[in-house]
Amino acid sequence: MPTVLGQNQYGKAETRVVRVTRDGPVHHIRDLNVSIALSGAMDDVHLSGSNARVLPTDTTKNTVFAFAKEHGIASAEEFAVRLARHFVTGQEAIGTARIRIEEYAWDRIPVPGPGGHSFVRRGRETRTAQVTFDSGGAAGERWQILSGLKGLVVMNTTDSEFHGYVKDRYTTLPETRDRILATEVNACWRHVRDGEGGGGEEGKAGWDERYERTRGHLLAAFAETYSLSLQQTLYAMGSRVIEQTPGIDEIRLSLPNKHHFLADLRPFGLDNDNEVYFAADRPYGLIEATVLRDGATAAVPVDLTNLP
Amino acid sequence: MPTVLGQNQYGKAETRVVRVTRDGPVHHIRDLNVSIALSGAMDDVHLSGSNARVLPTDTTKNTVFAFAKEHGIASAEEFAVRLARHFVTGQEAIGTARIRIEEYAWDRIPVPGPGGHSFVRRGRETRTAQVTFDSGGAAGERWQILSGLKGLVVMNTTDSEFHGYVKDRYTTLPETRDRILATEVNACWRHVRDGEGGGGEEGKAGWDERYERTRGHLLAAFAETYSLSLQQTLYAMGSRVIEQTPGIDEIRLSLPNKHHFLADLRPFGLDNDNEVYFAADRPYGLIEATVLRDGATAAVPVDLTNLP
Amino acid sequence: MPTVLGQNQYGKAETRVVRVTRDGPVHHIRDLNVSIALSGAMDDVHLSGSNARVLPTDTTKNTVFAFAKEHGIASAEEFAVRLARHFVTGQEAIGTARIRIEEYAWDRIPVPGPGGHSFVRRGRETRTAQVTFDSGGAAGERWQILSGLKGLVVMNTTDSEFHGYVKDRYTTLPETRDRILATEVNACWRHVRDGEGGGGEEGKAGWDERYERTRGHLLAAFAETYSLSLQQTLYAMGSRVIEQTPGIDEIRLSLPNKHHFLADLRPFGLDNDNEVYFAADRPYGLIEATVLRDGATAAVPVDLTNLP
Amino acid sequence: MPTVLGQNQYGKAETRVVRVTRDGPVHHIRDLNVSIALSGAMDDVHLSGSNARVLPTDTTKNTVFAFAKEHGIASAEEFAVRLARHFVTGQEAIGTARIRIEEYAWDRIPVPGPGGHSFVRRGRETRTAQVTFDSGGAAGERWQILSGLKGLVVMNTTDSEFHGYVKDRYTTLPETRDRILATEVNACWRHVRDGEGGGGEEGKAGWDERYERTRGHLLAAFAETYSLSLQQTLYAMGSRVIEQTPGIDEIRLSLPNKHHFLADLRPFGLDNDNEVYFAADRPYGLIEATVLRDGATAAVPVDLTNLP
Repeated sequence: MPTVLGQNQYGKAETRVVRVTRDGPVHHIRDLNVSIALSGAMDDVHLSGSNARVLPTDTTKNTVFAFAKEHGIASAEEFAVRLARHFVTGQEAIGTARIRIEEYAWDRIPVPGPGGHSFVRRGRETRTAQVTFDSGGAAGERWQILSGLKGLVVMNTTDSEFHGYVKDRYTTLPETRDRILATEVNACWRHVRDGEGGGGEEGKAGWDERYERTRGHLLAAFAETYSLSLQQTLYAMGSRVIEQTPGIDEIRLSLPNKHHFLADLRPFGLDNDNEVYFAADRPYGLIEATVLRDGATAAVPVDLTNLP
Repeated sequence: MPTVLGQNQYGKAETRVVRVTRDGPVHHIRDLNVSIALSGAMDDVHLSGSNARVLPTDTTKNTVFAFAKEHGIASAEEFAVRLARHFVTGQEAIGTARIRIEEYAWDRIPVPGPGGHSFVRRGRETRTAQVTFDSGGAAGERWQILSGLKGLVVMNTTDSEFHGYVKDRYTTLPETRDRILATEVNACWRHVRDGEGGGGEEGKAGWDERYERTRGHLLAAFAETYSLSLQQTLYAMGSRVIEQTPGIDEIRLSLPNKHHFLADLRPFGLDNDNEVYFAADRPYGLIEATVLRDGATAAVPVDLTNLP
Repeated sequence: MPTVLGQNQYGKAETRVVRVTRDGPVHHIRDLNVSIALSGAMDDVHLSGSNARVLPTDTTKNTVFAFAKEHGIASAEEFAVRLARHFVTGQEAIGTARIRIEEYAWDRIPVPGPGGHSFVRRGRETRTAQVTFDSGGAAGERWQILSGLKGLVVMNTTDSEFHGYVKDRYTTLPETRDRILATEVNACWRHVRDGEGGGGEEGKAGWDERYERTRGHLLAAFAETYSLSLQQTLYAMGSRVIEQTPGIDEIRLSLPNKHHFLADLRPFGLDNDNEVYFAADRPYGLIEATVLRDGATAAVPVDLTNLP
Repeated sequence: MPTVLGQNQYGKAETRVVRVTRDGPVHHIRDLNVSIALSGAMDDVHLSGSNARVLPTDTTKNTVFAFAKEHGIASAEEFAVRLARHFVTGQEAIGTARIRIEEYAWDRIPVPGPGGHSFVRRGRETRTAQVTFDSGGAAGERWQILSGLKGLVVMNTTDSEFHGYVKDRYTTLPETRDRILATEVNACWRHVRDGEGGGGEEGKAGWDERYERTRGHLLAAFAETYSLSLQQTLYAMGSRVIEQTPGIDEIRLSLPNKHHFLADLRPFGLDNDNEVYFAADRPYGLIEATVLRDGATAAVPVDLTNLP
């Protein structure tokens, strides 16, 4: 046969599960979008159509709902670890499971009295998690746990310059000493794990706390960095997370430069002293980089936009 | 000629203007998406292509930027009133101007020290405004000022029932005494105006305060209503706004019923006591209604999804 | 009570039904997205939550599937007529039904042999239909049947000028004698009906043929009009449809002016003789108008973007 | 310093260029969306904000427009090769350039007479290309040329079965001997290159012809495969491309299983002999695999959704 099968994976994508936990009149919710990708000894189904080793994607979806009931959802990371372990240990043909989760945050609507079952969606930023578990054969089990966020839109209205760059035949951009710097933060960080996915320092609340702290570092570094380039701001954001978080060794950031162009008001006899801007959609600069703890090995995928 | 020209309008849609106001080290921003529609004596341009009465859409875009500089943006409503008046009074051929604005909210990123130029986008809910000004000829000027919001996603995890409905041959839905009620609030309310658009009780801050109060009423009524139908909840939301706000006579609500179906866990030997739900995308129920102050005349468009 | 209920409607939106008809080895498909809005005597459900007059939206969804089986889908228009009549005549509380349908077109994939069950989606243009049936009480039944399309993107690379327009203080646009004219055609036309919705000249195939002829007129008029303004092109498109189609009395067109700006290559020592363009997203001009047969009364909604 | 910089790249994303070529009254157009990512010796800009080695992303955008003028756009692949070579050979600091292009296809609108400057967008399928050029240092230059498509939606209304799969505790899916098989083909194939990017068999028209042939193989294999699993269909599609095209050694396919569920009409006393389906949005199965020529080494990225 002149062709062979390469890397392959399958599973159910975008299962939307909402888990309600009732603590008397006070309810708690977790709202997730779960995507499962399984891989292993799957030559037969590709070559002959035999499904003898195939757990249906419908079953992987059912498992999400059943596990939400049986085990609850303490956090996206913990839920993903549980699912990954289940598929790899439960199916002989499956060697690797990758669980990607988007989580949508809700705030409580304040109400009089003791209740607490009313919520409002928090906004556009989406929290993400990705757990990959490889049974590893003789090499032993390998876990990778990534957390992240996407769609966190931020802006500095000053303290950003851009000058001193290379000029070639096609360069027309004027240098600037004061511009708007705006971006949509897409980030993915890798947790240090020395045991299996479920172990480590993080307990039930640990993943949520670490997420909030990491998000806070990203915002603070963005706001507090006097920027000579978006790359510099990116590096400041990434290194602050690494330096402040012993359990995180690597972070990947993808920062579209959301250009705000000064409106040209001179034809109307008006100055524009950095007051009126046109917010452009496309094209946009795209600045991407990984920041690592010294000595760590990079493992976060280079292209973030498909996480999860 | 067997054909005639009916209603027509033109203008520049979706001009994205960001206005920065500098108060020493503290900056303030307004972030708008402005769409302009002008109409009037425009037969010639349709029938012969003569542009002699046509102010280019490019000019209407320029006017947005110039006005942002010259007058600032105290609020979306006030800015829309100013633009509407300008086009109708400044161009003989223009009899009516309709200005639609989406506004995106930003929160401050807290930083040490006295500064304040760092912001984070608040979320998915979008504030809207629509001002229509008709010069009116002999009938005199007419103003209509609408405010609203879209994309405010809310959920009650209990205190919602649905039963006692009509059953016909095609009815299979089981009745329920406890369900999730979730929707995305799209709302548009009409302000009472007895003078021109720029007058009235609202000053620079008035429109923002009224918006926040109205949003609060919508959330509170959603959370506090024990619901027998989404229509009942809708009416409670709308009537609360009218009753609590003397300056608002009418509100239109469009509430998609974002269905959350109980996952069927019985095949796995598990109960599901309103704990695990599947959040469905389509189809969805769509509940729409206008609530009016007794004696008021309806004027808000029936279809909200195109506002602005 | 200080508040009253105004216009209201409810139903299931976006039911995605695919109907396969098997003609031996040759299959035919219809792929629809159906949205139902019912209105009538619905005060109780809003005021007290009583569902005694409410047919569940779930039932309206079931009806779509059941009717697809029982009656087939000869065309979107015919299917919508049938659904509208069913809800209005079958439910005492329902006085008006509005059925909106999007239809997605598929082409056959050519295969050897006699079969014919493989298809490829045709593209971005979506065919639309909207049928409104009002039982009318003493005034008698009223039907309105609209057909349309959205997302038909077209471009002329020459034979478009724009000059001779009004200049005010904010005008900077240079006049041009040769530009790209590109738009996304969104159109909705109203059929003359002298009987009930199901009657008239159109049979099973009639609606499809009329759609294809109307689409052809729109494309031909766009391509063959030497344009001095997009309004002129719009009117040429609309009047051609009316003049060529006795059964259509009115058409509404919404044409975003998809700007293609000449790239400025002078800084690089290059001419740009209408060869290289930047295709902009926002803002865009938006040109909208109704064209009517002389003597007809306008009835198509002014805002098309919400159809359906 | 405890942190170090890992993989990084930057450039302008989504530059929308339209190129018109005038052949007397007949015009030809190319409509591209170009994204550029450059990488190399970029430590300084991240660590200190020095832009001394940074060619602005604005310049990379300008280069797209200038090259469209100077060299025309014979094909997306050829244009990407030219851009990649320019950035790597022209900037000492740049070691690698990755050019991603989406191309939108247009058909001619037929008109009487000799002209030909009117076009209609063909549809939803988007053609893609990605060229990566690495100067390689001592190892010598390396080129990778990928072509692909996304959004090609296809459906077989029969000749698809699914049974014989693994059942575990969470399996509820009934086996089926006749179902709809529908998917959206996302594909990326790698061209064999033994010289630099600009060489090889493909001339000006070669890339377009190869694209059409490859697309045709994908459609034919989808239509002609009697399917026992979507994996089997995927492999048939991929191996057909490899077997029929000596210049292609590898193809990656990402096929969402767009589920069409039989509507349950039994409650209404109706059969549903594979006639009426509900087209679901989410969740969906996602089947992904690489097919290789025997002996070839896989190089196409596993995650296609970010190409380009």
